[in-house]
Amino acid sequence: MIAYPFVGLLLGLITLGVAGLMMVPCIVAWKLGSPDRTAFLISNVATALFAISLIVVNRNAPHKLNVREVFLLTVSAWLTVCLFGALPFVLSHTVGDFSDAAFESVSAVTTTGATVLTGLDSLPPDILLWRSMMQWVGGLGIVALGAAVLPFLRIGGMRLFRAESSDFSEKVLPQTRRFLMQLLLVYLAISVACMLAYMAAGMSAFDAVNHAMTTVSTGGFSTHDASIAWFDSTAVEAVAVIFMLIASAPFVLYLPILAGRILSIRPDGQVTSMLRAYLAVSVILVVWLVASDHSGFSEAARQAVFNVVSIGTTTGYVSTDYTAWGHFAVTVFFFLTFVGGCSGSTSGGIKIFRFKIAYIMFRETTQRLLHPNAVFSRSMDGRPVNDDTVASVAAFALAFACTVGLATILLGAAGNDFVTSFSAAATATANVGPGIGDVVGPVSNFAAINDASKWIICVAMLLGRLEIFTLLIVLMPNFWTS
Amino acid sequence: MIAYPFVGLLLGLITLGVAGLMMVPCIVAWKLGSPDRTAFLISNVATALFAISLIVVNRNAPHKLNVREVFLLTVSAWLTVCLFGALPFVLSHTVGDFSDAAFESVSAVTTTGATVLTGLDSLPPDILLWRSMMQWVGGLGIVALGAAVLPFLRIGGMRLFRAESSDFSEKVLPQTRRFLMQLLLVYLAISVACMLAYMAAGMSAFDAVNHAMTTVSTGGFSTHDASIAWFDSTAVEAVAVIFMLIASAPFVLYLPILAGRILSIRPDGQVTSMLRAYLAVSVILVVWLVASDHSGFSEAARQAVFNVVSIGTTTGYVSTDYTAWGHFAVTVFFFLTFVGGCSGSTSGGIKIFRFKIAYIMFRETTQRLLHPNAVFSRSMDGRPVNDDTVASVAAFALAFACTVGLATILLGAAGNDFVTSFSAAATATANVGPGIGDVVGPVSNFAAINDASKWIICVAMLLGRLEIFTLLIVLMPNFWTS
Repeated sequence: MIAYPFVGLLLGLITLGVAGLMMVPCIVAWKLGSPDRTAFLISNVATALFAISLIVVNRNAPHKLNVREVFLLTVSAWLTVCLFGALPFVLSHTVGDFSDAAFESVSAVTTTGATVLTGLDSLPPDILLWRSMMQWVGGLGIVALGAAVLPFLRIGGMRLFRAESSDFSEKVLPQTRRFLMQLLLVYLAISVACMLAYMAAGMSAFDAVNHAMTTVSTGGFSTHDASIAWFDSTAVEAVAVIFMLIASAPFVLYLPILAGRILSIRPDGQVTSMLRAYLAVSVILVVWLVASDHSGFSEAARQAVFNVVSIGTTTGYVSTDYTAWGHFAVTVFFFLTFVGGCSGSTSGGIKIFRFKIAYIMFRETTQRLLHPNAVFSRSMDGRPVNDDTVASVAAFALAFACTVGLATILLGAAGNDFVTSFSAAATATANVGPGIGDVVGPVSNFAAINDASKWIICVAMLLGRLEIFTLLIVLMPNFWTS
Repeated sequence: MIAYPFVGLLLGLITLGVAGLMMVPCIVAWKLGSPDRTAFLISNVATALFAISLIVVNRNAPHKLNVREVFLLTVSAWLTVCLFGALPFVLSHTVGDFSDAAFESVSAVTTTGATVLTGLDSLPPDILLWRSMMQWVGGLGIVALGAAVLPFLRIGGMRLFRAESSDFSEKVLPQTRRFLMQLLLVYLAISVACMLAYMAAGMSAFDAVNHAMTTVSTGGFSTHDASIAWFDSTAVEAVAVIFMLIASAPFVLYLPILAGRILSIRPDGQVTSMLRAYLAVSVILVVWLVASDHSGFSEAARQAVFNVVSIGTTTGYVSTDYTAWGHFAVTVFFFLTFVGGCSGSTSGGIKIFRFKIAYIMFRETTQRLLHPNAVFSRSMDGRPVNDDTVASVAAFALAFACTVGLATILLGAAGNDFVTSFSAAATATANVGPGIGDVVGPVSNFAAINDASKWIICVAMLLGRLEIFTLLIVLMPNFWTS
């Protein structure tokens, strides 16, 4: 980071924050006399030392970032958090080897929620807490990235919803810092509200803390192998559904909370489209479940809504084995994997606004066929949609399809069957968690796949989480030369 | 067709052409004393009567077409040929019921090549000939549509390659007619050359006629259940590869043939990209086959090139069970299903030029991220690519993905497993033929699926063949009201 001192300084500060958070499971481990306590202490010290070294070395860096440095910071921040976050897993021997540790850590930080661990119910609380905290941090990171960084990089669509300055010099840094602090407070407030709601629904304090962190981040890690099904509680599922939906809306909408004006929060066009989409899929599945005599109406409604919201928002909690609902449901859940929530939220996937723009283009194309010389003005939720936006949505869709396609082919080469390869590629790139099929379906986990496959999935998870281009561009040769 | 008299007249002429062609298997059936001879005679008379009625009723129609009528003519022409083409199958009891007959007919006319028939080797020659002829007609139809009609409708990308008039009035009709006649002659010449080449490679005259017709149309029907594998001949496979590639290039490139200047035919940018793409995939599969000890180099090269070209060009001949090449090959062939050949050819799929435009957009997007204020000029093979073209490629990609997705979900609802549903939807929409999995893989056929699934696949085949929008727009309510 000698060549990019301010990137090094900010990375040091971010890592210091991670080290600070790691003190929580570390203290818990020592309080409880957990076998992992030394592992946590070493991890914590190593993370803190790395952070402090970076800060000291780069302490005199001029406070400004160019476009290239913003990309570099984003990618190195995610990789660094994944790397140091994996340390406790490796040192505590919770996982078999470094591949497993990296997988668990990347899955956590990207808020995917795929796991290689079995026997969660008997793991020490400190490890469970750390997994959940990493998802929470990953969720916070993506909210910050989506709201404050990606719009400036012209990635991720938030430019459509907020006016943005087009430079990132000293002038805008203080206001960016203030904005990020507001988002952090909102994220914290919603997390606490979610925790209290889970406790009110009957969860233990420990489960509530963990699930609140993995709900608000749409991550989907649980403290139980059976996931949400373990609680067998409609109240718990209802809380999960509500907060998964809250976490899949743009967090900037919640800024009124800070002024105590909760009632002035209004859903925007993205949110209503998202709710309509989930509702439509839920209704279709309820009809299917009832018509195919799979279950009665109320049970069908409960299961359909929960699992559609869980997969749609890319959380990945499981309340039942939806792959047992028949071939129709399997195909529906496969395609639902790609949908995602709103931009500026913690959810992944292709995201609602891109489908809206795609639909606008589709409608325009059909109209243009009948009226070749007509002039069309495009708008979405009252804002104009220009050609650049359309091109960037098209480029993202292509990049997403190529990522899933290439990951599928590589997973095939690594020895996985077609359904496992395709489903794992999709669920990883969309940061969902569970897929379909015997190996990566909702009631199995990723322990059964080989190390090569785990690394392929790690790359797909990172690409998906960073809106593909953010990571891809750093890997391109002309990033470093041009 | 009272409301659209010139559409009715042209449809009558097209149907009369089909009736004329149907006389060939009809005469063959009577010469050979085939059990199908009455069936063919009835079908032939019915087709001719329908054609003549249309012509007589609409004989005084003014010779002009507006945009709406061009769409209507295109769609009704395809449906009419499918319908009357199915008559001999039904009346001869070659197939079980009307669903099977419709499937076989739609698969033929859309040049998909999926079949519900088994025991091809023992079918009467007249039926085999009719199947092949329908593919040949379907291929001719798509060449005519792609070169003369779709550019005017701004569909299919040929506008990128040819300057086009933007109206279709009396003025351009004679030159369109002349152009179509030239294409017909080129198509016929290439078909004859292909037949002679097959005979030189050792095929019987009957097999050569049939395979020439299904090669040039990239249809892929065979006279043997084992498809091309039946001949077990490298020479036959080589001829097939060469003519599948020829048929996947824009037929306008071959117009110099009519002036006897074969040597002045030059591949354009689309063709070289297509050849490079197939070569790259072939090389990867050869490396895979050799490295995984599946076969020696020469056998691997032979099988890889043949099957990559067969699936890539959307022909669908089978020389071996490529799904036995391991999971990697299965995923490769699945994605290869979507590729297709060039616009203006007989091949289906997404087509090469759309991938080129997508790649151009992808490159521009990554460059724009690093240089937000730079101005980019897009060009493909020396021609500018404007925003409208990008938008129409994006809209097509969306429409294609939605067609495959929806067909997959519906096939799932009809009781097919995930792999069968997805693969059948893909292979139908791309007009390829064989898919992957036990049910619709290269060594099985579509006889095992139920009637509901067959109809879903028929719609997907028609949508794919007509570049989706051509058919879709006629199905939209505002086509008829606006």
